[in-house]
Amino acid sequence: MSENPLQVARTLATEFSRTAAERDQLGGTPKAERDELRRSGLLALKIDRQYGGLGASWSDTLEVVREFARVDSSIAHVFGFQHLMLATVRLFSRPEQWQPWFEQTARNNWFWGNALNPLDTRTLSKKFAGWREFSGRKSFCSGSADSEMLIASALDESTRGKLLIAAIPSHRTGITLHGDWDNIGQRQTDSGSATFERVRVEENELLLDPGPLSTPFACLRPLIAQLTFVNIFLGIAEGAFEEARNYTLKEARPWFKADVSQANQDPYVLRHYGEFWVGLESVRLLTERANAMLDNAWSKEHRLGAEERGQLALAIATAKVAATRTGLDLTSSLFEVTGARATHAALRLDRHWRNLRTQTLHDPVDYKLHELGDWALNSALPTPSFYS
Amino acid sequence: MSENPLQVARTLATEFSRTAAERDQLGGTPKAERDELRRSGLLALKIDRQYGGLGASWSDTLEVVREFARVDSSIAHVFGFQHLMLATVRLFSRPEQWQPWFEQTARNNWFWGNALNPLDTRTLSKKFAGWREFSGRKSFCSGSADSEMLIASALDESTRGKLLIAAIPSHRTGITLHGDWDNIGQRQTDSGSATFERVRVEENELLLDPGPLSTPFACLRPLIAQLTFVNIFLGIAEGAFEEARNYTLKEARPWFKADVSQANQDPYVLRHYGEFWVGLESVRLLTERANAMLDNAWSKEHRLGAEERGQLALAIATAKVAATRTGLDLTSSLFEVTGARATHAALRLDRHWRNLRTQTLHDPVDYKLHELGDWALNSALPTPSFYS
Amino acid sequence: MSENPLQVARTLATEFSRTAAERDQLGGTPKAERDELRRSGLLALKIDRQYGGLGASWSDTLEVVREFARVDSSIAHVFGFQHLMLATVRLFSRPEQWQPWFEQTARNNWFWGNALNPLDTRTLSKKFAGWREFSGRKSFCSGSADSEMLIASALDESTRGKLLIAAIPSHRTGITLHGDWDNIGQRQTDSGSATFERVRVEENELLLDPGPLSTPFACLRPLIAQLTFVNIFLGIAEGAFEEARNYTLKEARPWFKADVSQANQDPYVLRHYGEFWVGLESVRLLTERANAMLDNAWSKEHRLGAEERGQLALAIATAKVAATRTGLDLTSSLFEVTGARATHAALRLDRHWRNLRTQTLHDPVDYKLHELGDWALNSALPTPSFYS
Amino acid sequence: MSENPLQVARTLATEFSRTAAERDQLGGTPKAERDELRRSGLLALKIDRQYGGLGASWSDTLEVVREFARVDSSIAHVFGFQHLMLATVRLFSRPEQWQPWFEQTARNNWFWGNALNPLDTRTLSKKFAGWREFSGRKSFCSGSADSEMLIASALDESTRGKLLIAAIPSHRTGITLHGDWDNIGQRQTDSGSATFERVRVEENELLLDPGPLSTPFACLRPLIAQLTFVNIFLGIAEGAFEEARNYTLKEARPWFKADVSQANQDPYVLRHYGEFWVGLESVRLLTERANAMLDNAWSKEHRLGAEERGQLALAIATAKVAATRTGLDLTSSLFEVTGARATHAALRLDRHWRNLRTQTLHDPVDYKLHELGDWALNSALPTPSFYS
Repeated sequence: MSENPLQVARTLATEFSRTAAERDQLGGTPKAERDELRRSGLLALKIDRQYGGLGASWSDTLEVVREFARVDSSIAHVFGFQHLMLATVRLFSRPEQWQPWFEQTARNNWFWGNALNPLDTRTLSKKFAGWREFSGRKSFCSGSADSEMLIASALDESTRGKLLIAAIPSHRTGITLHGDWDNIGQRQTDSGSATFERVRVEENELLLDPGPLSTPFACLRPLIAQLTFVNIFLGIAEGAFEEARNYTLKEARPWFKADVSQANQDPYVLRHYGEFWVGLESVRLLTERANAMLDNAWSKEHRLGAEERGQLALAIATAKVAATRTGLDLTSSLFEVTGARATHAALRLDRHWRNLRTQTLHDPVDYKLHELGDWALNSALPTPSFYS
Repeated sequence: MSENPLQVARTLATEFSRTAAERDQLGGTPKAERDELRRSGLLALKIDRQYGGLGASWSDTLEVVREFARVDSSIAHVFGFQHLMLATVRLFSRPEQWQPWFEQTARNNWFWGNALNPLDTRTLSKKFAGWREFSGRKSFCSGSADSEMLIASALDESTRGKLLIAAIPSHRTGITLHGDWDNIGQRQTDSGSATFERVRVEENELLLDPGPLSTPFACLRPLIAQLTFVNIFLGIAEGAFEEARNYTLKEARPWFKADVSQANQDPYVLRHYGEFWVGLESVRLLTERANAMLDNAWSKEHRLGAEERGQLALAIATAKVAATRTGLDLTSSLFEVTGARATHAALRLDRHWRNLRTQTLHDPVDYKLHELGDWALNSALPTPSFYS
Repeated sequence: MSENPLQVARTLATEFSRTAAERDQLGGTPKAERDELRRSGLLALKIDRQYGGLGASWSDTLEVVREFARVDSSIAHVFGFQHLMLATVRLFSRPEQWQPWFEQTARNNWFWGNALNPLDTRTLSKKFAGWREFSGRKSFCSGSADSEMLIASALDESTRGKLLIAAIPSHRTGITLHGDWDNIGQRQTDSGSATFERVRVEENELLLDPGPLSTPFACLRPLIAQLTFVNIFLGIAEGAFEEARNYTLKEARPWFKADVSQANQDPYVLRHYGEFWVGLESVRLLTERANAMLDNAWSKEHRLGAEERGQLALAIATAKVAATRTGLDLTSSLFEVTGARATHAALRLDRHWRNLRTQTLHDPVDYKLHELGDWALNSALPTPSFYS
Repeated sequence: MSENPLQVARTLATEFSRTAAERDQLGGTPKAERDELRRSGLLALKIDRQYGGLGASWSDTLEVVREFARVDSSIAHVFGFQHLMLATVRLFSRPEQWQPWFEQTARNNWFWGNALNPLDTRTLSKKFAGWREFSGRKSFCSGSADSEMLIASALDESTRGKLLIAAIPSHRTGITLHGDWDNIGQRQTDSGSATFERVRVEENELLLDPGPLSTPFACLRPLIAQLTFVNIFLGIAEGAFEEARNYTLKEARPWFKADVSQANQDPYVLRHYGEFWVGLESVRLLTERANAMLDNAWSKEHRLGAEERGQLALAIATAKVAATRTGLDLTSSLFEVTGARATHAALRLDRHWRNLRTQTLHDPVDYKLHELGDWALNSALPTPSFYS
């Protein structure tokens, strides 16, 4: 790729933006766009150059996520999850496992999907000599359709307590992706359910060493997930702002009681934009700080300590609460600066709220505030989990 | 009708609720439901008994609007507008005009539609000896499809300043209803555009005596419109609350970090419901007070003074601001007490926000606050207009 | 009293208002004002006529509380507590106990003070043949200074679990009122601490039959306390609004960037007043409904059921949450419509926030929301306690 | 000064904190603390080393302001204004004017006071051959008492339009400082009024070249004022947070309905702290960004362009809106995590709200939102003025 990856992403984003509203209506798999992503080389954005990737930092990668989210938050989601899945193998498995996966991903532009939902305990793992079998169901399998690889999880059948995570080809016998994601938002993320029927998983496909949430470094995995969401939330809000702004400037009419000739001079319209701005700026700084802190933590690898990992968790949680609120307010209030005609379905201006509303439910913001309060009051760092 | 009208409405509402989500998706004209309304006799709910109606008060009528809004705010809208249109002829025309219209409406279960939008100045009226011709376009013609009568407005071609309002059969030659309402909410209100091509309007179809916004009593018309909205907003919020509550009780799962066995014991979930309750109770009282004040003002007819009309305007504006905010917050926040699975498209739980968001844009809430501030600070009553 | 009690209260309030700011600075006991209240006959406002009182309803009584709170929330507090103490003996003791107390109060214009704080468990009661001795400390003894009678509580020394409540003369041997109330708000409520040193309490001074929180009717006691607070909160907010309004109209200057000649035309100033209005109107309706419901519940006496008592508790809790928030917002935001010069200490415009902030901490609003949530979601009525 | 200036400031702050509550009550001039500041050398903190100062950057200087504001926002104010006054002569006068003032200030530890209020037009300047006379009144003269130098302004008597600004010794004949600052907050800032009676002002004391608001660089003056406020607001909020936290941890009791043994485990208490944290973190980042941008703009001197100055103005305005809101909320809500006993007057925990409430009225936050809206919507940079 001769161009700067962000430039490549912007070009793609411009293209995706043309059909984003229409594809929001359609739902399903954005096959053409996914193939564009494959061709762009961006699926290997965060893979180190020595394995054939573009060697981007996390902040650069998340900037691309945010760039996509401004126009199409479904694409942003699966693109972000691509790198989350790669981080999962990097953090939970041995170099001789993840290095080939990285190389193959870069070489073949593999798309990775998610079938890991740790709160869905319906998939069990049965142990055999040298391999295992995964059987059961999983919900919220984002990006699983049209993927080459899948990160799947199962509970050990005997202990029930231990979560086993594996990286397996998406087309392996026994895996059925139901294509049943039809939700109010994030409609092209293919976050439906999967069924595993005695799916054979080899020992070297299991991510056991160091395994999930084992070391502070391995515990970056949930933080990468959370920070990916934050960048998506911010991108959605920024995209919604931009659409609202264009509408106010080009289409909105001054209210007959306002003593102004154009809507963009109305004191209450200006006030709304002032509010949007304060919210967006706060979230931008909180997000960018967290992104930079992730770069730093990532670079420390096994030297990363629990304290530093905890501070990153707090920075991400703070950004997430702010991004959730600012975004939900902006995507709903924007209609007050456009007026009734902007509810026309063809504009699908409501999709920003629907996308954000859906994505912000991944885990409760109430419990992010709880964690932040426990830090602010009791100096207690968040306990690492798949959500913190 | 042997039953209590509210009982009849509840039975209909129960029936409408079964298909409301599906019809939200379809959009278009809810022909079957409109015919049910025709058969029910409720289209004459507010018409006095002497003209064949059910003789309900405004509060009773608005209670039915709210009842419908709990399950289907599009139906609530066109049902409310039915009575707003009847109020329009009652308030703006002579008894020898409105009495026959009332009688025919009650006898034939006529549905009345709206083509009055005073801010859309594209329809002009040309004067001839004994009649006029309306030509031009109108937007936001709620309930015009499948209606028998239409309230239409045009600007006098010569003066351009004077708004002429007429009651005409919807099927008169020259009227085209475009059926082009496809918006993010209130999807079955048929609020699309109409074209008038040299539509002949007889003198006795014009509402000239006393005419629009002429006397304090005539100035009740915009207040009835505004209060109809308030009751719709409240009904939407109540319906959304009820759906959320059912979901939390029957479907929601406790968050793994919450030290509770059921989601309905989570302290943060309870807090959200506490917030919903405070909001709803406030709006209920504000709305019911305004409804009762309208009954009182209506009963005074030509004895109604500007001061009393002004107080009613303030009560309605207050209720409207509160209903808008409480409703928008509730219809967006409800997802935080249901969790991510409630975003499943089949539930269409987002329709409450979409419906409310669309309907609350009728006129800016910012300017309602402005009016209320002018009263609170300067003791200035709202100047009557089509929006106050 | 030949005049209407509300009229009497208004006259007193006008008088109190002249020195309210100065007395807020002084703190201590408003002896002159308390004696005015004694002379006015209003201390017997809620005592039935047959016992020599003015026979007012609870709503009338609470309207007087609110009237006082508009100008002096310390006076409102002790005046409200006067009637709360009388309600305490009425609800917890036998007629042959409370009737003489009522008669003597009406005849001698007794002021009743509070030493009941059930969360302060430092006062114990020792049993003797025919009497008891109270010994220990009590905090938050509002209105105890300059009172003739005191409602005091102690935990039974042996069981520790049972709260004994007594009505005793304030000057009985062994009672020391420390006059140590010096807080940021409600500065003339004398809500300091008391010490009981082997204070003899006769059996017939104990409120044992039916005793505290025994029947639904007896359980009205905490609700009267809570509703008294609500009326105080509302009165404070209304008084603050009125002072702000006068300042904006008479003193405030338009901001140089506002395109208006007077501050009262500034669109943002008007917006603030609009917000104040919506808040106040909501709280007024919620409060007045609760007041009326209390009248109704009170009149039922022993026929009052737990369900009806519970509904009253909900109505009061709802009003309390709304009054707390609206009031705190208004008393802080009012400075934005007056400008910097209104911070002049002589105006003591901050006292409204200080008074409300202090009084609203009586019990946490968070747990009122919790209760309301438990009702809204789980249909669980509040469990009667000294705070619900 | 052998120590790091921030370390010196921290030592002083610790000392100031011991008497801050008491001095809040007293009001008046904190003479001892001002003399400590003189002795510390910090009055020359921002003066370049070549003129005998400590050569600190603006961010370092503002960090000291914030450090003081955490314990005593009056001290923070006059200390911040010291450097604002020095910036005024630096930006508005010729090197041969400001250099000696800088040197003398560093050598003699002069304190500079403010008598510039441009909205108070009561002081007029009369021109004579070689000098002028200032006569009239000025309000809001922060830090004027106990100062050696004063920045004073007057309107040219003939034109009335032109604001003349001068740097003059505070003790010059004709200047009377009334010591009449007695306001609800910022009580030791000596922000009272001054009278000028034919005060002689020499030509070389007038700041005419380049004069006020002349170049983009000169236009930094109001931005330094605004950013000083922002740092004070943040410091107040941080100090209030810290006091609240100590109280919750050491003094607060769990509410009897909370199923926790200590207040610091209450889910609602934790939620409040979570909210405080999100607010504070946002304001910290916004403030620190603006501080760094000021360093950068300052270093460009005459090369500073209007665009860059405008971006700084936006960054400061954004931080100001956020700091105002977060601070007002925190300083009022903190009582909900401490409980009623924390209203004890000796703690004077209300002073944080009173200080912030007073200081945030310097200029309306509504118009900051207006400016930000004009940028966000219309890409219009703020027009430089004494408030933007």
